Amino acid sequence: VESLHESRIRRLDVVLAARRMAADAAWFAQRGWLLGTCGNLSCLLSREPFEILVTLSGRDKSSLTLEDFALVGRGCQPLSAGQPSSETLVHEVLYDRTPARAVYHVHTLANNLMSRLCFEQGQVTLQGVEMIKGLEGHSLTDTVRLPIVPNSEDSKALAEQIRQHLSPTVPGILVYQHGLYAWGRTPEDARRHTEVLEFLLEYALRLRQMGLED
Amino acid sequence: VESLHESRIRRLDVVLAARRMAADAAWFAQRGWLLGTCGNLSCLLSREPFEILVTLSGRDKSSLTLEDFALVGRGCQPLSAGQPSSETLVHEVLYDRTPARAVYHVHTLANNLMSRLCFEQGQVTLQGVEMIKGLEGHSLTDTVRLPIVPNSEDSKALAEQIRQHLSPTVPGILVYQHGLYAWGRTPEDARRHTEVLEFLLEYALRLRQMGLED
Amino acid sequence: VESLHESRIRRLDVVLAARRMAADAAWFAQRGWLLGTCGNLSCLLSREPFEILVTLSGRDKSSLTLEDFALVGRGCQPLSAGQPSSETLVHEVLYDRTPARAVYHVHTLANNLMSRLCFEQGQVTLQGVEMIKGLEGHSLTDTVRLPIVPNSEDSKALAEQIRQHLSPTVPGILVYQHGLYAWGRTPEDARRHTEVLEFLLEYALRLRQMGLED
Amino acid sequence: VESLHESRIRRLDVVLAARRMAADAAWFAQRGWLLGTCGNLSCLLSREPFEILVTLSGRDKSSLTLEDFALVGRGCQPLSAGQPSSETLVHEVLYDRTPARAVYHVHTLANNLMSRLCFEQGQVTLQGVEMIKGLEGHSLTDTVRLPIVPNSEDSKALAEQIRQHLSPTVPGILVYQHGLYAWGRTPEDARRHTEVLEFLLEYALRLRQMGLED
Repeated sequence: VESLHESRIRRLDVVLAARRMAADAAWFAQRGWLLGTCGNLSCLLSREPFEILVTLSGRDKSSLTLEDFALVGRGCQPLSAGQPSSETLVHEVLYDRTPARAVYHVHTLANNLMSRLCFEQGQVTLQGVEMIKGLEGHSLTDTVRLPIVPNSEDSKALAEQIRQHLSPTVPGILVYQHGLYAWGRTPEDARRHTEVLEFLLEYALRLRQMGLED
Repeated sequence: VESLHESRIRRLDVVLAARRMAADAAWFAQRGWLLGTCGNLSCLLSREPFEILVTLSGRDKSSLTLEDFALVGRGCQPLSAGQPSSETLVHEVLYDRTPARAVYHVHTLANNLMSRLCFEQGQVTLQGVEMIKGLEGHSLTDTVRLPIVPNSEDSKALAEQIRQHLSPTVPGILVYQHGLYAWGRTPEDARRHTEVLEFLLEYALRLRQMGLED
Repeated sequence: VESLHESRIRRLDVVLAARRMAADAAWFAQRGWLLGTCGNLSCLLSREPFEILVTLSGRDKSSLTLEDFALVGRGCQPLSAGQPSSETLVHEVLYDRTPARAVYHVHTLANNLMSRLCFEQGQVTLQGVEMIKGLEGHSLTDTVRLPIVPNSEDSKALAEQIRQHLSPTVPGILVYQHGLYAWGRTPEDARRHTEVLEFLLEYALRLRQMGLED
Repeated sequence: VESLHESRIRRLDVVLAARRMAADAAWFAQRGWLLGTCGNLSCLLSREPFEILVTLSGRDKSSLTLEDFALVGRGCQPLSAGQPSSETLVHEVLYDRTPARAVYHVHTLANNLMSRLCFEQGQVTLQGVEMIKGLEGHSLTDTVRLPIVPNSEDSKALAEQIRQHLSPTVPGILVYQHGLYAWGRTPEDARRHTEVLEFLLEYALRLRQMGLED
């Protein structure tokens, strides 16, 4: 198996997806959403046969290049050299169960704190804020119920938890004291959903800190 | 109707206004004031006939180019290709009722929180802070009453609310759990007013969090 | 009187001082310390005859160029075109009463809040923190008493207040709900003192918010 | 003794280590973790004979170049011109007592505040958060006990305190109202450990501010 950046043949879809994810990751990293090489990003290159481009494990997200990504097939089968993120299975579940073609995962103070504060309810409830309209298919009067699942060191168990608790309408899910997965039909949508959900989580957190419920 | 960036003839006023708004939007985006493709910016190119350059709907504000803007006439009449921001009507009202030649709209945690905390009073009261002098025509002893209007999914209704509650002296207005509109006679003034009002809102918020009134 | 950037003769001391201040101002602006064109910066070019280079009034501090500065002599006498900052008199007092060759002035949330919280004591007391060693001549066991003076719209009155309340040892002073002046023997020292004092003020603020005194 | 940047012979290991530390320092500086020329960074170039490359005292960390570093041997013996950081002795202890080949030291609000809040316990306890997995050899179920030592103006005394209280497993240590030392087998590891520990400290701080224990 060759590594992507040593390969003499460059696939345009791979190069463009890597470049787009590198730009989005650098932006998130600047905001402190990907500290300590945490988080991971992927794009679906083909649904049949299943093929995704995903970040390698443990790479600094502030300056990704082609050599920080791997091609992965069904069941985490490696299609290029390098160790894909240990959470690639979660990405696979999300591509199977949603119309997503891009999945972004960030660790932030706000998403960790809200996952902790609302864990017993199993969800964070967000409503009445204009920013909600940034989620695909949502209007100002919709109530967003963002699910929270327990964390696990076993990525199969985590993927299964996420599969079971996915919302049919909300393009994101929280993992307890771990982070947010957000996705969309395009990388642009995945980035927008990540930013919108992070804004809403921070807003809900600040309301709570002032003794106000959302 | 042609798109602006495909047109073979480049109008200097369009190119310069787009470049200026792109720089200001990138700056606001870096500060987290335009997350999730929210917000919109416009410049008045001509009052008679009425012509404005406004951001297209749903564009990432961190890296705007000419193709992210549209020319729009009276009553939101499209003068170039692309879907202008759904809030273009609000901009039109502000150009009609104020001396503004640039209108900037941002969604921030501070402006959402203050709109929530002060909604029943219908305004945020700001006073005694040096930064107030950054608002055109204001001195240190002035009390700034920044109006707050209800939010609405109907942009006509929102524009009408804003028309009714505009302050004769303050170059900004808050929309409940939505964001801030700020404007000025030049793009430089609109940017300065946006920054001054955001500073004052964050300051008032932090005072309240410490149990102090402004 | 010519403007600095139109003049056909370029003085090296002017160009170098402007470049240095532009870099420091851009850095402060990125941190949100110079929003809304607030604040001002100067360097002393010559003590006898008195000559300083100071930012013009109302300029965006994120991207200063030579045309955003003016040369000013004793008693605010203009030596080049353009309207110098209205607080140039304060700078003059600081050059007369301290060994400063650079004076920086920033408006931040932390310095406004601390000036408000400690106004009745007339000073902010800072002690026991390693960062104090970043102030010239200070060791870890020193207590820093940063004076606070009332604000005024009359820059002569403000300059006089500052003259009277200057500390003999601390290279900074707070103005009530206005901002921080910090200075040093070089622009490097003025920047370091600005950053150290802002860190200490934010630290003292966060301690208070947790019910701890400094 | 020659200075590094004036020397006519350039050692590749020195140039590469300086470049890497400059990039990491600029990143930390942007985040406000190295304000006021505080902090210091080093890399171990050779264990036998002992040789490290360390930042000079009082340099602005946002834009380090080769001339901001010194080569230092056993017992702080200068191998090139310039005044090495006064805390070089601490670095030496860490290289002697751990497998570290890079040591980074930052002053942040969160690490100062947590050192203050937990000083009497002698450590900060961190557990149950996914981010912990970013520390070498740690899994999600591990409890991280980050030691805190008293501060001292005497760097020998500080180095001795750190030598005595080093954890056998945690790649970091806090100094009371001073800052964090973090290290790793490579500069990449030192940076990751710095970021992970800062995230965890800020998280623990925010939990406490909400009345929740970690």
